[in-house]
Amino acid sequence: MQSVHIVSAYDEELKYLSKRIAAMGGHAERMVEQAISALVNSDPELARKVVEDDTVLDQGQREVDDKAILLIGKRQPMATDLREVIGVIRISADLERVGDLAKNVAKRVASVGDAVQPVSLYRGIEALSDLALTQLKEVLDVYASRSVATIGFVRDRDDQIDAMYTSLFRELLTYMMEDPRNITPCTHLLFCAKNIERIGDHATNIAETIYFIVTGDQMPVERPKGDKTDRIVMPIS
Amino acid sequence: MQSVHIVSAYDEELKYLSKRIAAMGGHAERMVEQAISALVNSDPELARKVVEDDTVLDQGQREVDDKAILLIGKRQPMATDLREVIGVIRISADLERVGDLAKNVAKRVASVGDAVQPVSLYRGIEALSDLALTQLKEVLDVYASRSVATIGFVRDRDDQIDAMYTSLFRELLTYMMEDPRNITPCTHLLFCAKNIERIGDHATNIAETIYFIVTGDQMPVERPKGDKTDRIVMPIS
Repeated sequence: MQSVHIVSAYDEELKYLSKRIAAMGGHAERMVEQAISALVNSDPELARKVVEDDTVLDQGQREVDDKAILLIGKRQPMATDLREVIGVIRISADLERVGDLAKNVAKRVASVGDAVQPVSLYRGIEALSDLALTQLKEVLDVYASRSVATIGFVRDRDDQIDAMYTSLFRELLTYMMEDPRNITPCTHLLFCAKNIERIGDHATNIAETIYFIVTGDQMPVERPKGDKTDRIVMPIS
Repeated sequence: MQSVHIVSAYDEELKYLSKRIAAMGGHAERMVEQAISALVNSDPELARKVVEDDTVLDQGQREVDDKAILLIGKRQPMATDLREVIGVIRISADLERVGDLAKNVAKRVASVGDAVQPVSLYRGIEALSDLALTQLKEVLDVYASRSVATIGFVRDRDDQIDAMYTSLFRELLTYMMEDPRNITPCTHLLFCAKNIERIGDHATNIAETIYFIVTGDQMPVERPKGDKTDRIVMPIS
């Protein structure tokens, strides 16, 4: 009977950690949504809220880390069970970074200002963050269901995010070259776009961790990491 | 006798992982040095070498991760021993990211081009990367010695890095506003500077992990994460 008791206590503790990850994921999604909304609508109040909200993820990561390490020491899990706990540590670190990136977007809201930017720019930022958020949501759904069979979708969406970020990068440089008054706000928007692209990368990291938890293997096919904007050079008109 | 044998095998395996971390750290330092050298001297050959060298850190992280997880499963370490292995997983992830950031600087070398930039700009980039590299080296020294008593230095240097990055950010925006031909190269230099500032953050993460390994606690005093450039708005002359 005792071993049954131990196993079930272990399962309870693991379930608790998974729930904390799900809660952190939901919180991170909300922060990203609100940061973009604050940016697009020049809403400093909402931006401030996002900045304050980030402490929840910092504390969440700390708690999950501490509990996960205690759990390994106490229950000495093996194989899949051990991978589950290591996975929790990794995923909470990625979600904490997503929070940092959302916070960084929010902190730039005042510097972008309500200078009338072309509508297409904000549409581009929104479209990019929609893609990154969908990536994050679907990856967290896979974490809940553990159905890694279809996880290949993350690679395709990663490519879409990179392509959209690249076109936004070009567009922002163009506006900067048209009028020096655009340089400051567009530079901040460039960093916002970069942050959103990084959020997509963290979602992909989480997918890789889930694949590792379930299969014990690395996810096949190395994805070409990072963006492709490093080679963009704009012609001078 | 058998338990002595097991303990010693465990120590051997842990020592191997520590050595791998030291080697990854040395490799990451070299990549950063060479990426900056390639950037400052417009050396596309050296830049290409840095980009290729990054696979060493990717493979290093994979190997360290796999071995660390196997080690936990096989030896079931407790307390400090467990923290050592968890620490190895965390530090290798930070070093892998440092490699990514150095690679990203290297990939921008061609886009910055040999357009004659003001000498002060390159001096600024070099000074920033000197600080970040010193941070990384000293933190890796602490990892080797485990002498965390003096680890407070990372906070001070973090502040210096942030201050230098902020002044570089302003300088780059100024050049962009002076002449639209500067916009493309200076945007890439902005991202290079941001990457170097992030390398300093990863060094600080590593310091926090070492502190956790040795003491079992979080490093005191929350450092204010991230840079302060999000509030920079340049006046239009």
